Amino acid sequence: MSVSPFAPKEYLDLPPIKGVTLASGAAGIRYKGRTDLMIGLLSEGTTVAGVFTRSLTASAPVEWCRQNAEGGKARVVVVNSGNSNAFTGKKGVAAVQKTAAAAMKIAGCKEEEVFIASTGVIGEPLPAEKIEAVLPELKAAAKADAWLDTAKAIMTTDTFPKLTTRSAEINGTNVTINGIAKGSGMIAPDMATMLAFIFTDAAIDSAALKTLLIRGTQKSFNCITVDSDTSTSDTVLLFATGAAGNKKPEDAGDPALDGFKHALWDLMEDLAKQIVADGEGISKFITVNVSGAEDDEAAKRIGLSIANSPLVKTAIAGQDANWGRIVAAVGKSGAWADRDRLMIKFGDVVVAENGEVNPNYKEADGQAEVKKSHVSISVDVGVGVGRATIWTCDLTEGYIKINASYRS
Amino acid sequence: MSVSPFAPKEYLDLPPIKGVTLASGAAGIRYKGRTDLMIGLLSEGTTVAGVFTRSLTASAPVEWCRQNAEGGKARVVVVNSGNSNAFTGKKGVAAVQKTAAAAMKIAGCKEEEVFIASTGVIGEPLPAEKIEAVLPELKAAAKADAWLDTAKAIMTTDTFPKLTTRSAEINGTNVTINGIAKGSGMIAPDMATMLAFIFTDAAIDSAALKTLLIRGTQKSFNCITVDSDTSTSDTVLLFATGAAGNKKPEDAGDPALDGFKHALWDLMEDLAKQIVADGEGISKFITVNVSGAEDDEAAKRIGLSIANSPLVKTAIAGQDANWGRIVAAVGKSGAWADRDRLMIKFGDVVVAENGEVNPNYKEADGQAEVKKSHVSISVDVGVGVGRATIWTCDLTEGYIKINASYRS
Repeated sequence: MSVSPFAPKEYLDLPPIKGVTLASGAAGIRYKGRTDLMIGLLSEGTTVAGVFTRSLTASAPVEWCRQNAEGGKARVVVVNSGNSNAFTGKKGVAAVQKTAAAAMKIAGCKEEEVFIASTGVIGEPLPAEKIEAVLPELKAAAKADAWLDTAKAIMTTDTFPKLTTRSAEINGTNVTINGIAKGSGMIAPDMATMLAFIFTDAAIDSAALKTLLIRGTQKSFNCITVDSDTSTSDTVLLFATGAAGNKKPEDAGDPALDGFKHALWDLMEDLAKQIVADGEGISKFITVNVSGAEDDEAAKRIGLSIANSPLVKTAIAGQDANWGRIVAAVGKSGAWADRDRLMIKFGDVVVAENGEVNPNYKEADGQAEVKKSHVSISVDVGVGVGRATIWTCDLTEGYIKINASYRS
Repeated sequence: MSVSPFAPKEYLDLPPIKGVTLASGAAGIRYKGRTDLMIGLLSEGTTVAGVFTRSLTASAPVEWCRQNAEGGKARVVVVNSGNSNAFTGKKGVAAVQKTAAAAMKIAGCKEEEVFIASTGVIGEPLPAEKIEAVLPELKAAAKADAWLDTAKAIMTTDTFPKLTTRSAEINGTNVTINGIAKGSGMIAPDMATMLAFIFTDAAIDSAALKTLLIRGTQKSFNCITVDSDTSTSDTVLLFATGAAGNKKPEDAGDPALDGFKHALWDLMEDLAKQIVADGEGISKFITVNVSGAEDDEAAKRIGLSIANSPLVKTAIAGQDANWGRIVAAVGKSGAWADRDRLMIKFGDVVVAENGEVNPNYKEADGQAEVKKSHVSISVDVGVGVGRATIWTCDLTEGYIKINASYRS
């Protein structure tokens, strides 16, 4: 499989996060000749917050993490690729318990401080004994600068590892945030679930972390779509070791968190865009801006309706400034729009306004915009002040080739 | 463009419908060397009911028909292909009015008895004068047996004309129902909107017709999907001339309509399946049966979630019995399902039950089912007695080729 044209030329060298050590290894769960397991060891006192798939067929590890995140404390995170441990019934629950027991042993912690994520084939029992066997070695090898290797170990059909970093100040103390992620189609055997793990040395209690994480997710991971499919395993976890020693903010609304939260949200947006940039078969990175909607939620619905439309996505793949398909996608979203005030732009080129083609629009100008590798579509639906930005990729023959090929 | 492998070997010779004459011709709206206009002339006393797109960017002709259908009377229907007259602002409304004025003249009827549908490019003004110029010739040529030619005139990217017939008895009188339809992708410039026009010589008042049409649409045209895209122009019209002279049923619930309504619904299902069978790039016809849902509406949501999943559709295209993607599609539908009681079948082969792979399942058996040209997927979600059947096609490189090619 060829690497995405949007893969970075070189990878960032992430700084260490006080209180976090990492390691990756090859447990041989499914893949040959590559790593498929990572651990993150977290210092005592680490707080955690998580957001998870809304799928009603969520996997066993998602259910485990959802419950443990309620406790707000973490000491270890274990992530494997190659097998998602989803739709595996009681065997799946047993595999999570076995992995957790082994993780507790290496981290010297309680069951409720263990976090587990799995990505890969659905419906096949996860051989947890292979994870169990490798964990002690990983613990011995764990170090502060293993970010790139860790990001590589959680890849499935990803064509490049995804990682980034930000820094901020809380009450006069410098703190660092690192994140790694994976995902390229939204879900499938052999692939694609979205996972993101974010680590900071800031001291922030878990309730505040949760508030910041949920708000950030709404404007990052929940604003991307590759193929509209939702995984049984989507997981985002945010760990805060507190090792930076900053004075703890009172709550999520404390002004001391202003810098941190924007750094965090910016990092989340960065990771989310990296996931889109590795969308299966991508040839164009598409940004959809919606304005003039009834509220932000309506704007998001309209944006997702455009971004998920196979007809819009294939038009962009074909470098066709086919704005009629955008009109149709707005109409089917179900969100309030005034057909006769609709405005559509490709880049800065106004294609349509007041419900008709812009009389000055030249097809060649629209075509020039959709020939770019980054295509921007803006729509104003003329009924309010709601706004949203959605990121997606085009739909190409490459997507079909990847997903219509047999699982072997 | 190659013809769908599911195109019929030969076309039915539809019987005449008393009170209906038809004609088609070439108005030269967009296409060269083919017909692009049809009319149906309806005898005095014809009743009508319609269902229309839920798109909030509905086209000018849809708004015209929606209003006229309230009156319940019809004398003429005019349909053009090549231009959908959608997103054309005030010019679009004027084009409908001009077409209607010309149609009133040939039919000798009132404005509110004229029905108009347009399918084709979005956003370009419809040259109504070209329609106006041809209507008198069409009136002169109208005859009772022009069904196939009429079905051909409304095609856009369709690769075969769609038509069928049924008969029934109402209060001892034989009546006939004929239908024509078009549609292959759901929408796009140059193509695809779903249109269906159904004619019967039965005498049934418009309120009863409407009830029967709405119920029939729920189990036919609303149960198909090619690419999840909804058109700005979707229109289904049912005309009843009354020329058969049957004693009028009291209302939609009158037992005298039992035979008729099942014949009508069967005809609608037949047309709906013909539309799927001409789905852009189709290589497999897929039937999705959902049972065990909370109610029928929930079953439909689950069925559409499976049928619209690009990952399910590409798996079938690749002849991969990839049931993990079906689990994911059930989960993302949002409808209540019990993960641990989920049952999945390809054809009669039980792949998964009670939330796990069926221990007796052999991959080769599943593969044999998805190698067929008609693939059946059945899912029981284990929480109730709701049922639905959805028809769709696979997602192939052919779909991308058709939709990523430029509009010229």
